[in-house]
Amino acid sequence: MDGPPPPASPAGLSAYVAVSQLLGLTLLATTGAWLGRYRGGVAWDSPLQFNVHPLCMVLGMVFLQGDGIIAVFESHRTKSIPNMYSLHSWCGMAAFVLYLLQWLLGCGFFLLPSTSFSLRSRYKPQHIFFGIALFALSIAACLLGITEMLLFNIRDSYSRFAPEGVLANTLGVLLVAFGLVVGYVLTRDDWKRPPLAEELALSMDFKTLTEHESPGGSSQ
Amino acid sequence: MDGPPPPASPAGLSAYVAVSQLLGLTLLATTGAWLGRYRGGVAWDSPLQFNVHPLCMVLGMVFLQGDGIIAVFESHRTKSIPNMYSLHSWCGMAAFVLYLLQWLLGCGFFLLPSTSFSLRSRYKPQHIFFGIALFALSIAACLLGITEMLLFNIRDSYSRFAPEGVLANTLGVLLVAFGLVVGYVLTRDDWKRPPLAEELALSMDFKTLTEHESPGGSSQ
Repeated sequence: MDGPPPPASPAGLSAYVAVSQLLGLTLLATTGAWLGRYRGGVAWDSPLQFNVHPLCMVLGMVFLQGDGIIAVFESHRTKSIPNMYSLHSWCGMAAFVLYLLQWLLGCGFFLLPSTSFSLRSRYKPQHIFFGIALFALSIAACLLGITEMLLFNIRDSYSRFAPEGVLANTLGVLLVAFGLVVGYVLTRDDWKRPPLAEELALSMDFKTLTEHESPGGSSQ
Repeated sequence: MDGPPPPASPAGLSAYVAVSQLLGLTLLATTGAWLGRYRGGVAWDSPLQFNVHPLCMVLGMVFLQGDGIIAVFESHRTKSIPNMYSLHSWCGMAAFVLYLLQWLLGCGFFLLPSTSFSLRSRYKPQHIFFGIALFALSIAACLLGITEMLLFNIRDSYSRFAPEGVLANTLGVLLVAFGLVVGYVLTRDDWKRPPLAEELALSMDFKTLTEHESPGGSSQ
């Protein structure tokens, strides 16, 4: 569609995005350092399978989330550890199920051609709010996982500031900092993408559209 | 100041506020039930002093925060437990210090008569973002505290779904639900208070105000 060129990126946005990516890479490296240096590394068919869980959860909070959840259940079955008893597991599973719901609702509202403009525009703010809230819940679940892992493995030396504990706490602080920067970038009003020409036209025509008008059918 | 009556409350807002308050009261009651039923209750000059910490943190995340922090340091000193080694303590202390900073900045920008309108309006979105982010960080710190307390006290029976573990996990889920509802109420665009008459007038006069004009001095 022809139209005016997209507006230039707002001042400051690039720097914040760069900081968020730098923080993201740093926390991935810190996760790798912790698992590699102190927890024996990562492998699927071995007693190290558990370590796939935090690695996948932190590495790919979106696209590797499924693998991370499978790893912890298989590891628990091998070691006869019960599932889903801890607050970490409850929060992690809630984040996983709610992300799935968010994805299904997103498909239903934004991908199905039969969904009306009016429904889409009413759902969009909910989708944005829950996307950010679930991101925060994922970070909280990571923090709980770090605390569990430390209390299971180095309970006695943790209170003597064992290097592993300090490293893992630092990872937790990096996760919080990452969440703060990403949350700031996502919610700052003047960094939101301005509506496209066709969206503006749509919102002006909004009151004349019927509830069941479809995007593909409006000009036919 | 005379002016038009304030606009009516938006539809739905009261119901959400009611739900948030109901969730808040429920989580306070659940905290009380956990500490009273399983952890021996709460008392300051006794080995139960530690229990003042989660109670104060959850009961009054704002006005009792100070008491909650003092209680944990005194309790640790009495029992010769080191301070500030856990991720829970790092996140809790970060939330406390950043809240203090937020409070000081809030006083400086909004209470000092000499702060210009322009500075105030540029700081306000930051104040709102960090207020919500620190609320989320406080909830994450509570979740970490719950996990620590369970792994210190009922480590072996936790994985067998001991009633205390299920109750405390439920408290964690209530904290998350409370955060979600409050966060939703705070961020929904059409539930934001519309600008008052004097604020509208100010924003219209905005470009004619100098950077160092003060609210009290503009009409003198």
